[in-house]
Parts: sequence; structure tokens; C-alpha cells
Amino acid sequence: MRRHRRRPSSEFGSDSEADEAAGTMKCVSCRDEYEPRDAGTCRECYEEASETEEELKREIEDLKSKVSFLKFWTPFDHYHHRSTPCFSDIVLVASDDDSGKPASNPVPVSAHKAVLASRSPVFRAMLENEMEESLSGTIKISDVSYDALRAFVNYLYTAEACLDEQMACDLLVLAEKYQVKHLKTYCEKFMVSKLNWESALVNYAFAHQHNAKNLLDAALSLIMDNMDKLSKREEYMELVEKDPRIVVEIYEAYLSKQVNTAAHKDSPSKS
Amino acid sequence: MRRHRRRPSSEFGSDSEADEAAGTMKCVSCRDEYEPRDAGTCRECYEEASETEEELKREIEDLKSKVSFLKFWTPFDHYHHRSTPCFSDIVLVASDDDSGKPASNPVPVSAHKAVLASRSPVFRAMLENEMEESLSGTIKISDVSYDALRAFVNYLYTAEACLDEQMACDLLVLAEKYQVKHLKTYCEKFMVSKLNWESALVNYAFAHQHNAKNLLDAALSLIMDNMDKLSKREEYMELVEKDPRIVVEIYEAYLSKQVNTAAHKDSPSKS
Repeated sequence: MRRHRRRPSSEFGSDSEADEAAGTMKCVSCRDEYEPRDAGTCRECYEEASETEEELKREIEDLKSKVSFLKFWTPFDHYHHRSTPCFSDIVLVASDDDSGKPASNPVPVSAHKAVLASRSPVFRAMLENEMEESLSGTIKISDVSYDALRAFVNYLYTAEACLDEQMACDLLVLAEKYQVKHLKTYCEKFMVSKLNWESALVNYAFAHQHNAKNLLDAALSLIMDNMDKLSKREEYMELVEKDPRIVVEIYEAYLSKQVNTAAHKDSPSKS
Repeated sequence: MRRHRRRPSSEFGSDSEADEAAGTMKCVSCRDEYEPRDAGTCRECYEEASETEEELKREIEDLKSKVSFLKFWTPFDHYHHRSTPCFSDIVLVASDDDSGKPASNPVPVSAHKAVLASRSPVFRAMLENEMEESLSGTIKISDVSYDALRAFVNYLYTAEACLDEQMACDLLVLAEKYQVKHLKTYCEKFMVSKLNWESALVNYAFAHQHNAKNLLDAALSLIMDNMDKLSKREEYMELVEKDPRIVVEIYEAYLSKQVNTAAHKDSPSKS
């Protein structure tokens, strides 16, 4: 990356005096010489900026230690030595279909009502109003795999998750359902970072279904850059069949963008 | 703070061309001109540093949102509407003396075993081993005021405390007793920031008693800078009466510093 400039043969005092006399300057950061057109900051501003950077780094250290203090040991920590209690007062059970019936042999995921209620307003309402789940001590989570449920609960305790594309989808769905905003943002960021033209349409439909605004905008923007190829894609045909209204929205957005662009092009010449 | 340098009458193009010809440079941050001896960075390093600063700021935002996600609503949030449960499974009671007997009319502080055990290895051992406290559902905290106990429990849930000098002492004692390192560091930082010669000896003795290494070092350093005034202070006489060994340690540290300083002074002339 760095362009190497003419470097003096020695790095000591006499050279810098010679530099000053010649009007060239030496960067206090990379130690290279530079000419007026490459001038960055004066020394005072450089020192102020360095102080700022130090302060920011200290703040980051403080925040990291706060995060590690606030992170919970999860009930999972206790799986290896089941004899010790973890004071959990509720279990979550994954069920593979929408009926809420548990899968054939479900492994319950232990948790604490206080943690669930503190992280999700949906759990809070469910537990505080002493609905069936609170009384029975079991919350059934429909249409989710055991792995996704476990990752979801783990996130509620630690604000951390190990994502791949499938897991990001699964967790975003859960985050949306249980209103865990922080997790939803986390998954959306990951999905936006993985977005490409091949996956844009599927992601657009997914984002639509789960109110993922950032993902929706990013996917729509990618689609609009490739409108000529759109109608040839298999996913496009499927989407027209399944949910034509959101295909209409793509065309509406595209048209509105075209109108805007045209207006922009016109306005400077008129003024 | 900022020294204002010679500023050109106009800030536009022709000037900067003139500057280049003259060999002076314009700082891209403060827009002032500077001479070779005041040179900070070249443009490339300036741009890299700006990117770094942006990245650090983004990291801070991420960490802040993580902290606010992980922060617990405390049982105190529920005091205003007591009808809703907060799923607490233990109470802490402050007792004013060492015997552990509760104060005449103690207000219990609700908490969750899972939170206490996650933040403090002492609480964890107490609760996991099903000692008396776990079975009775009440932990008696001796020699502490209700306000300090409440602030202590609140810190375990939020990593936040509103400190004054007394509260910092009280919380440091609790943090030491229950091995809540994060809180101990927090109190120590506050106490070091408030340290002065008037309070140095009292803080030194306090730090000694509670293994507060940073506070101890800061107080000792202040004391050693004022050795001539030390023996005249009332707290000094009291300390000699009460705990002469730690007064001896002050003299030992002072002597060792003197020997080191003398050795440093000698060594360059010999080499």
C-alpha cells in the first residue's frame, strides 16, 4: 500500500537540519520525506490526534472489560458438570413445525426467566403475565432447529454468536419473533456483508418477510444495478408466482430511481 | 490552546500554489500554515490515521450497544410496580455490625442467584454448595449500610455505580470481600483520581487493609514526595499507634527509592 518516498541515507540529526534548509519535511509517523503537495497535518494537530487515538483505545479497553463482566455464564457452561445447579427456572424446547409440538426427542435448553425477560419484551410479557409457559416452566419454540435455539439462548446471555448464512437466517427469524433488536442488527450486518447478485433476490424476499430494513435496502440496491438480468433468474419466476406484490415493489423502486436520476440530470442545466 | 500561525488572506487555490512554491505547507486539519520544524505527518499517514479513528469510533459504538444489551434490568426496576414479579430467588440483607445480625428494621434487597453467582466466585461457591444462605434464600451481608448494599447489587446487574468518596470505600470493601474484580478496579480508579496529600495516609492504610495495589502505590508515591511533613500529621501518630508495621513499610520504600536514585545518579558518570 505505502508508496516509498526518497529516504535519506541516515536518520539522524544532521539530515533533518538539512531537510529544513531544503524546505522538505519529514513525516513523524512513517519517517519518510514529503513535498508540500503531500502535506498532511502540522505537528500540533498530529499530537492532538494521537492523544485522541489513545483516549479512544482506553475507552475501548474499558468497554471490553465491561462487556466481559456483564456477559453471563450461560446454562451451557454447566453441561459438562451437571451435578452443579445453575439456578435455571425455565426450559425452552425446539419444535420442528409450526404446530408447536415438540420434535420426536427434544433436548430442552435451560434458561433463567430473568434473563429471557430482560432481553426480550415478548418473553417478558409471556412470563410476567403468568401465561401457560410461565406456569409450566416450558417455552415451546416452533419451527426452529435445536442448534438455532441453543445459539439464540446463548446470544441472550453473551451477545455473541458464531454465524454462517443459515444460522444468520435462523437467528434473524427468532430475533424478529422475540423482538431482540440487538441480535437482529447483528444478523442483518452479517447477511449484508455476504450479499451478492446471486443471492440478492432470495435475501430481498427474506428481508421483506422479516422486516429487515437494512438487508432489504442492500439487496434492492444490488437488484436495481442488474435489472437487465433480473427476469431471467429462476428465483424471479418463483417469486412472481409466490408473491408478485414484492416483485412489483422492485419495479416501483426502479422507476422511482430513474425518475430521480433524470430530475437530477436536468436540474443543473436549467439553473 | 492552539497557537495561531500566519494565515493567508484567502483560502483558495492560488494561495496554496503560492505556498508550495515558497515551501510552506498547509495543515489539512487546522488549515494553518506551518514551517518544516512544525511538520507533523504526510498526507498518506494523515488519511490512514483518520481511517483508524473512524474504525475506533465504530468499535466504541458497537461495544456500547453490546453493554446496553447485556445490562440487566435490576430487581430495583420493579420497586415502582411491585405487582409484577421479577423472578428473583434470593434476598440480601444488610447488617450494621460484624455479627451478621440484621439491623433493627432491614429492607431486603432482591436478587437472582444466577446473577450473583455469575459475578462473584464467593457468591457462586456459597450458592452452589447449598450452604445455609442458599437454602434459606437470604444472604446476610455484615458491616454494610443499606445504601451501599443496594449500590453493590445494582453494580452486579449494570456495571454502573454513582460514587462519592464514602461510597467508593464501601463498595471497594464489598468488591474485595466478594471478589468482584471489575468493581474493585472501578472504585480504585475513582479513589486514585481523588487522592491528595491530605488524604494520602488514610488511603494508604485503607489500601493496605484491602489489597488495593493501585491505590496503595499512588498514595505511597504522594507520601514519599512529602516525607518532611509526614511525622507532623495527626493520622501519622494514629497509624504508628494502631499499625506500626505499615509505617515501617513507608520508611523502607523511601529508603529503597533513595538508594535507587543514588545508584542512577552514579552509574552514568562511571560508564
